[in-house]
Amino acid sequence: MPDTVSQRFQKELAACAGQVADLLLSGSYLERFQPADLREAVTLYVRAGGKRLRPAILLWSCGAVGGDPDRALPAAATVEIFHTWTLVHDDIIDRDDRRRGNPTVHEYFRRRALEQHPGDSDEKARHYGESVAILAGDIQHGWGISMMTELTQVHGVPPEVTFFLIEQLDNDVLNLLVEGEVLDVQFMYEPLGSLSLEAIEDMLMKKTGELYRYCAMAGSMIGLGTIDLDHPQVKALVEFSSNCGVAFQLQDDLLGVLGDPGTMGKPVGSDIREGKRTTLVHYAYHEASADERAIIERTLGVADASEEDIRRVVEIFERRGAVQRTRERARHYIDRALPHLDVLPDTRYRDLLADWARFMIQRVD
Amino acid sequence: MPDTVSQRFQKELAACAGQVADLLLSGSYLERFQPADLREAVTLYVRAGGKRLRPAILLWSCGAVGGDPDRALPAAATVEIFHTWTLVHDDIIDRDDRRRGNPTVHEYFRRRALEQHPGDSDEKARHYGESVAILAGDIQHGWGISMMTELTQVHGVPPEVTFFLIEQLDNDVLNLLVEGEVLDVQFMYEPLGSLSLEAIEDMLMKKTGELYRYCAMAGSMIGLGTIDLDHPQVKALVEFSSNCGVAFQLQDDLLGVLGDPGTMGKPVGSDIREGKRTTLVHYAYHEASADERAIIERTLGVADASEEDIRRVVEIFERRGAVQRTRERARHYIDRALPHLDVLPDTRYRDLLADWARFMIQRVD
Repeated sequence: MPDTVSQRFQKELAACAGQVADLLLSGSYLERFQPADLREAVTLYVRAGGKRLRPAILLWSCGAVGGDPDRALPAAATVEIFHTWTLVHDDIIDRDDRRRGNPTVHEYFRRRALEQHPGDSDEKARHYGESVAILAGDIQHGWGISMMTELTQVHGVPPEVTFFLIEQLDNDVLNLLVEGEVLDVQFMYEPLGSLSLEAIEDMLMKKTGELYRYCAMAGSMIGLGTIDLDHPQVKALVEFSSNCGVAFQLQDDLLGVLGDPGTMGKPVGSDIREGKRTTLVHYAYHEASADERAIIERTLGVADASEEDIRRVVEIFERRGAVQRTRERARHYIDRALPHLDVLPDTRYRDLLADWARFMIQRVD
Repeated sequence: MPDTVSQRFQKELAACAGQVADLLLSGSYLERFQPADLREAVTLYVRAGGKRLRPAILLWSCGAVGGDPDRALPAAATVEIFHTWTLVHDDIIDRDDRRRGNPTVHEYFRRRALEQHPGDSDEKARHYGESVAILAGDIQHGWGISMMTELTQVHGVPPEVTFFLIEQLDNDVLNLLVEGEVLDVQFMYEPLGSLSLEAIEDMLMKKTGELYRYCAMAGSMIGLGTIDLDHPQVKALVEFSSNCGVAFQLQDDLLGVLGDPGTMGKPVGSDIREGKRTTLVHYAYHEASADERAIIERTLGVADASEEDIRRVVEIFERRGAVQRTRERARHYIDRALPHLDVLPDTRYRDLLADWARFMIQRVD
């Protein structure tokens, strides 16, 4: 992406992020979150900022079909907070202590419990932190869905569109997303080398692609006032966005191995220690020598694997072309996504969506 | 309640429960819950049965204002599954192993993990069980809200009614309910004797009364096709039901101390070991002698308190009139609830609601 394009894109992305943050943090919802500890937990990740890529694609999809993105703002805020609550609960499940360099919700409140009740056991403090995080995620879930009703109640979106979008988000998307996450965990119990690329990418589509698909669908349906999944513009944006979503996840997997501590606060090799069956593992294991396979086998999923073993596995990923092939695969998804935009009229929003697609893989090539 | 009345009431209650269970368990929703383990977790409590008191009051409130209860069925199923997911998550937070004599969701899947992976540590199996229960509750939450859209999409309820009910449930009710639960936990850290009856009953209203209030509101609004909280019939049913909800919780607290292992599977004294600040503790502590206070202080909130100490605390509750006064308090709420029904026309549904109110305290006097 040339610098000037990138600057324009970053500026527009930041503008979207600001609108969404304003709606989330200055709304009348916040004062209802009681007591204060819980309000802090509910807003912890929202206040921490972030790129807010999902709201942006929703708002730009609305604009790209000729709609007024401002009318879609409640839905944009909804997908952001919906994504947020899944992170809060996932962090408990994945036992992650940090997100973007800051403590996760359950870790933050574990520490607070120890500060406030120094005599309590570690176990009690941990349980308190997890309890607060479970409840905070639950409240965010309800908050997100409540906001969706504003589409019709405040912005006059046809009721059938709003009902369809609520039902899709809280049923279809949620179920596939959770299924993807469960598969992600179950895969770690499968013998190495037994998983196909198709199985891994199907899981990525569910875990990450689904919510991206939803964002484009919601934005275009609000813009067009339709719930017709066969509408050519809806269809094009859905195809575009779900492909970008998989590319985003492939890029995320690369960052999880090659490291991007500045942005993600994710330590290099954390996915390897966790045992995640990324496409990197898939490609590398198939090409690896017997010795290399032995190194992968003794390192993957070993929480206290040595830095030396992690470094060796990353070297195997690079030497056996797994890094290169995963990069190419992400590029392939973006190449598949972009032509779908041709169906849309030539607008600023279409250009922003194209920039957004390229941004998905910017940091991996 | 005379036997014939009780029989009629029980029959009608069972009919409501059957309708709700049919909708929940034979709907097209179930097949979307993947993989199979998760589907089992999502339906575990639903399949276990239960009285389904909340759906009944919603359906009868609809009938009592002249509406067709069948049109309100999706909302009745929603409140049942909404209540269910809060139980699934609460059981993790309260560390309860059993509900109604069966294992809780997290305990059930902890055991399964140990069966399937006998080599795994207890800690890993516990974490697996809790992870499944977090996700199962999340899916139930989404399932419940999705079903609400059927009110308009299938049964033609005015969209503004359905939107209002979604927003109320997933925002107002959820926030107050969680606030009530957090207060319930925070109270355990307060010095004994420092809590007022008002503070305890305010917590009970939030923790339990709110969802009962919602059921009556939803039923009457669907029946009347209005979102007017000042409509005399809506107002009357809301007052009626929220008072019954507090009575129900007071009764539940009595059962938690006096025991009702047959129905609840709740061991006698579990609330005492947990340290719950019920009205029983409040009344007893105020009237207790210095020696009795010492016994309460050394037993309340002590997970491994001896059977002997539990027995002594229950004796103090009885001797100092706390059992009697809590019973009277429950009766007081029902007495306050019943006259509100006078606003409604004389129908079978009004009679059932009156029976339902008396049923709330049947087991405590």
